[in-house]
Amino acid sequence: MQDFSAAFLIIGNEILSGRTLEKNLSVLAHLLNERGWRLLEARIVADDGQEIAEALNALRQRYAMVFTSGGIGSTHDDITTDSIAAALELPVAEHPLAVDILEKFYQSRGAEFTAARRRMARMPQGAQILNSRFPGAPAYQINNIVVCAGVPAIFMMMAEAAVEQLPMGTVRTSQTLRVYCGETTFSDYLMEVDAAFPAVDIGSYPHEENGTYICEIIFSGSDSEPIAAARQMFCDYLQREQLRFDAL
Amino acid sequence: MQDFSAAFLIIGNEILSGRTLEKNLSVLAHLLNERGWRLLEARIVADDGQEIAEALNALRQRYAMVFTSGGIGSTHDDITTDSIAAALELPVAEHPLAVDILEKFYQSRGAEFTAARRRMARMPQGAQILNSRFPGAPAYQINNIVVCAGVPAIFMMMAEAAVEQLPMGTVRTSQTLRVYCGETTFSDYLMEVDAAFPAVDIGSYPHEENGTYICEIIFSGSDSEPIAAARQMFCDYLQREQLRFDAL
Repeated sequence: MQDFSAAFLIIGNEILSGRTLEKNLSVLAHLLNERGWRLLEARIVADDGQEIAEALNALRQRYAMVFTSGGIGSTHDDITTDSIAAALELPVAEHPLAVDILEKFYQSRGAEFTAARRRMARMPQGAQILNSRFPGAPAYQINNIVVCAGVPAIFMMMAEAAVEQLPMGTVRTSQTLRVYCGETTFSDYLMEVDAAFPAVDIGSYPHEENGTYICEIIFSGSDSEPIAAARQMFCDYLQREQLRFDAL
Repeated sequence: MQDFSAAFLIIGNEILSGRTLEKNLSVLAHLLNERGWRLLEARIVADDGQEIAEALNALRQRYAMVFTSGGIGSTHDDITTDSIAAALELPVAEHPLAVDILEKFYQSRGAEFTAARRRMARMPQGAQILNSRFPGAPAYQINNIVVCAGVPAIFMMMAEAAVEQLPMGTVRTSQTLRVYCGETTFSDYLMEVDAAFPAVDIGSYPHEENGTYICEIIFSGSDSEPIAAARQMFCDYLQREQLRFDAL
C-alpha cells in the first residue's frame, strides 16, 4: 500500500513567542487533502540548528513527505537550509538555476544582485527547484523534504507547486452535522455509532456561540457508503431524542 | 539555574485536517512570556493514543512544563486523559473534587449529572485540579503536565490558572523597528549587529503590505542595555543608508 502521509515542520521564534499567528498549516492541510494526502503531525521549533535537524530527522523517517516553512531568507536568523543539510549530512552549494532565477528577478526590478540576495540560492546538494508562481525566491525539494518560505502568501504558492507534483492519493470525503447542544448530551450514543462503523472517523467539535453550545459532528473516511450509514444512524437518534440539528 | 522552558502539545485531528484554525498557541505564549517563561517547542498530533503518549514523553523530559490542549471532553474521540495516564504509567481514577465540581455545575443548570458528564472527572491518579474560572469542566496538572480543553475561550481560562501559579521566571524585553524595504537590503549589516551583541536575539520578519515590503526587526533578551545598544547600532546604519524606518 502506498503511503500518503505528510508532516509539517514550522520553523520560527516568532511563532513560538506568540508574535506571529501561524497561518500556513491549514493551507497545507487543505492542499494535501485535495490531493488525497493526509497531514498527520506538525512541529513548531525555534530558529536553532540542532532543534531543526532533530525534528526533521524524526519526521522524514516517519512520514512519506515533510514540508518545512520559514528561515530561507537572507538574514542571519535564516538557518533552515544549513540545518537541513546538516540533518541529511549533505554539503550546501549554490544551485545554478536558483542563481539564475534570483539574478533575473532582481534585474527585472532594477536592483543590484548582491551577495546577500545570492545567499538565497544556497541549497543542500542535490536539491530540485520547485516550479512555484513566486518569482522572488526559489523553493526546493531534497529527498522527501519540501522547503518553503514562512510568509503566508509566498508559502501558499510554494506549497501548491510541491503538492501538485505529488502522486494522487486517496481523497477522503466527509459529512457534517451541526447539533445545537453540549456534547455530553449525545456522547454515549455517538460512541455506539463510532463502534458500529470502524471504517468511519467520527469527530465531535464543540464551541460556543452567543452562550449556546454547538457541536459539529464530522463523519469522514475514504468510502462514502459507511459514512452515510453512520450519519443516518446518528440522525435517527437525534430525531428520536428531539435534539435540534442541521445537516451542513 | 532554574529552567523556565515550556512546550505545548496540541491534540486534535481537526487542527491537522485544516478544519479548525489553531488559536491557543499564541495565547499560551503570551501568558508564559509575561510570567518570564518561554515556549520553546510545540507539536500537533492526531487523536491517537500512541502518538499522544510518545510526543508527551519526549516533551515532558525535555522541558520544565508541558501544556496540552484538546481531547478532554466526553465523546469517544476524547482520549487525552487515558493517553497521558498511559505515558506516565499511572492508573486513571475519578477525582472526587472533579466529580463535585461537575455535579454542582450540571445541578446549577438544572441538568442531569449523567455517566457521560461524570467521565470528565476521570484523571491520572495524583492529578491536582486547577482553580480555573471555567465552571463547566476541571483542568488539571499531573507532574509537570497541565491538561487543558481545546475550545479557545475555555483554554484561555484554564491556561491562565496554570500559568499564574508557576514561579516567576526571567521576563524578557524587546524593541521593534519597522523597516520599509526587503530584508536583502540590510541583511549583511544586520548580521554584523547580531555578531556584535551575543546577548541580544535579533529576528527579522518580512511581510508584504499592498505591494510594499516591510520588515519588522525585533531585538529581544533579558537585559535592556545591550538591546538598546544593538538597536541603536542598526538605526545609525539605516540613517546612513537613508532607509526609511519607524521605531515601534
